[in-house]
Amino acid sequence: MVKAFQIASGPRVRFGRGEAAQVGEEAKGLGMTKPMLVTDPGLTSSGALDSVIKGLEDSVVEYVFYDQAEANPSDTSILAARDFFGENGCDGFIAAGGGSTMDTAKTTLAIVANGGVPSDYYGRGKATKPGPPLITVPTTAGTGSEVTMSSIVTDTKLMIKTVLADDSLFAKLAVVDSALLAKLPSHIAAGAMMDALTHAIESVGSPASNPWTEALAFESIARIGAHGRAYVDDPSDPEAADAISLAAMLAGRAFTNTGLGIVHSLAHPLGAYHGLHHGTANGIFLPPVMEFNLPAMRDAYARMAPLLKEGAAHTAEAAIDAIRELNTDIGIPGSLREADVVNEDLDVLAKDAAESHQVNTNPVPSTQEDLKRLLLAVLE
Amino acid sequence: MVKAFQIASGPRVRFGRGEAAQVGEEAKGLGMTKPMLVTDPGLTSSGALDSVIKGLEDSVVEYVFYDQAEANPSDTSILAARDFFGENGCDGFIAAGGGSTMDTAKTTLAIVANGGVPSDYYGRGKATKPGPPLITVPTTAGTGSEVTMSSIVTDTKLMIKTVLADDSLFAKLAVVDSALLAKLPSHIAAGAMMDALTHAIESVGSPASNPWTEALAFESIARIGAHGRAYVDDPSDPEAADAISLAAMLAGRAFTNTGLGIVHSLAHPLGAYHGLHHGTANGIFLPPVMEFNLPAMRDAYARMAPLLKEGAAHTAEAAIDAIRELNTDIGIPGSLREADVVNEDLDVLAKDAAESHQVNTNPVPSTQEDLKRLLLAVLE
Repeated sequence: MVKAFQIASGPRVRFGRGEAAQVGEEAKGLGMTKPMLVTDPGLTSSGALDSVIKGLEDSVVEYVFYDQAEANPSDTSILAARDFFGENGCDGFIAAGGGSTMDTAKTTLAIVANGGVPSDYYGRGKATKPGPPLITVPTTAGTGSEVTMSSIVTDTKLMIKTVLADDSLFAKLAVVDSALLAKLPSHIAAGAMMDALTHAIESVGSPASNPWTEALAFESIARIGAHGRAYVDDPSDPEAADAISLAAMLAGRAFTNTGLGIVHSLAHPLGAYHGLHHGTANGIFLPPVMEFNLPAMRDAYARMAPLLKEGAAHTAEAAIDAIRELNTDIGIPGSLREADVVNEDLDVLAKDAAESHQVNTNPVPSTQEDLKRLLLAVLE
Repeated sequence: MVKAFQIASGPRVRFGRGEAAQVGEEAKGLGMTKPMLVTDPGLTSSGALDSVIKGLEDSVVEYVFYDQAEANPSDTSILAARDFFGENGCDGFIAAGGGSTMDTAKTTLAIVANGGVPSDYYGRGKATKPGPPLITVPTTAGTGSEVTMSSIVTDTKLMIKTVLADDSLFAKLAVVDSALLAKLPSHIAAGAMMDALTHAIESVGSPASNPWTEALAFESIARIGAHGRAYVDDPSDPEAADAISLAAMLAGRAFTNTGLGIVHSLAHPLGAYHGLHHGTANGIFLPPVMEFNLPAMRDAYARMAPLLKEGAAHTAEAAIDAIRELNTDIGIPGSLREADVVNEDLDVLAKDAAESHQVNTNPVPSTQEDLKRLLLAVLE
């Protein structure tokens, strides 16, 4: 028997090289007359958004440019974005950037639609009112935020990274065009990709994992195994960039239906306190957490091994080894020290991790002590 | 590189044994105050809908019972359903039955929302206005209509089976509960399952096939290969019924994004003129059409072979053999004659097949002559 499961609806998706040029027509089709174009600071100067902007201009869609999306967006940055949206009379969002940019748009959308402030909606199913239409256009391949119902926000009072999730946060349309990744620095490409791989692997480990999400998650893992190194080596390579864009999106579609595990529990506090890149942190924690989860995940990890590395043995250990190798090959730091994390307080980090909701969807129960041991394991 | 593709949004899904009991609460949650409960004639007397009806009563949702959904629903039956919906002041649809029942609800929804008659909306993207909310509850495992954006209607003037398709026809929610299949006669279970298998295989053959739909389609094929015989032998077996319910849904989710091929082109006229069960017709045509499509499909079919039959060689021919064996084992007739089709006019059937839109998404181009040869190949 198949354990009962639910799959959420989700955005319509357009995937392919050059598809970003269609954003203007699509915005018009969704009834946007004055969308807020949310991007990362400095992204336009790289030329990454040229096709998006040209498409908007060709479609004569009047957009309002906003490049103040923060990395690890704070609650206060969301209030600024909300004010900007209102003051400019915007009626839709186009979020063209990395996960932080897409999450900025989603959290802003939530408070535009529901009123109040982000902390009113932490958790799942609280920001339920439908907001203005959103088009997501990822310029990294990792978070999968283009197709998920959640957004991450850093609470500056509580000093935590937490999540808002509801069906109402789904984009109406995700436009995934791997040509936008061409100029990504390799270390960002690497970190984001390890975020995607972590999503796929933690989705499979969730008690809510099911045959539908697993079909997508294993496809995601296979693409990263086959094309991950080539992609980090040269994100302008069309075949590799397509593969990893696809992997990130499929993993997003999987985990938004299942939840994640304690790699994320451990990574988020390091983002909140030390600004450590989320995907890079995931890459660091993934192998030791897989070892911790072995008792529950032996078969699933064994199935992943030959997807992660051609010819690998069908064993869980081979999968973990393959990920360590991948980390090394793509330049993920081997420890928190190597990632320039200093003055850390392991007890605080472990406590925050233990209080995260992802603990509940990890395949193996974990105590605060377990989480501290996992932090120690990657410290030096 | 990945060829550009699109994925539609789609219904939220609840899958699992016993989930049908939630239909009442879900209908309320979707704002229905007086849904039209569309079912197959006689289905309630089998007890298959007991849990759905009890759930509606427990939730105090006042529903209006309509069991006049036709097999291969005609345009005139849709007008009757539309009148019933209006006369009873309904504000939503719950379609609990086989593909014909779900399609009856979807086509009725289209003309309730858009006005006019079904023939105003033949093809794709014409019935664009959103209609009243729809919950689909399949009581066979085959058509996948619970998660597709299309419905099939038989035009009684043109004597054709044709299709209406638009995002607006998606159900808001699909509730897939394989316990509802328990009393299905084996020959219906077999035919419907071959419909699902045909969907999965023809989706992979479509030029719009893509890694996302293929992940779902191959998962579907694997479930049918592993559990198909046990399911037809006893549809009340929970493990087998879950597997085939899942296979039908995943194949539906795949093909609604890709289109189908000439198995469907050939099967539909036999439904329109001879009332031949759609899935049974698909089962009859599938092996010879796969032979016809071999030049374009050798690799994909080879990948299917070991999924269809454990230990089969990785060859396209082994996949076709496995399907012939499956057909035999589950009692699919070996020819149109065996399926009691008499007085057929092959030229008319071939002409209608050649004019079907699925010809455009078959992996190998086909002429009317090719289609006539395929009809001849399964005649006796």
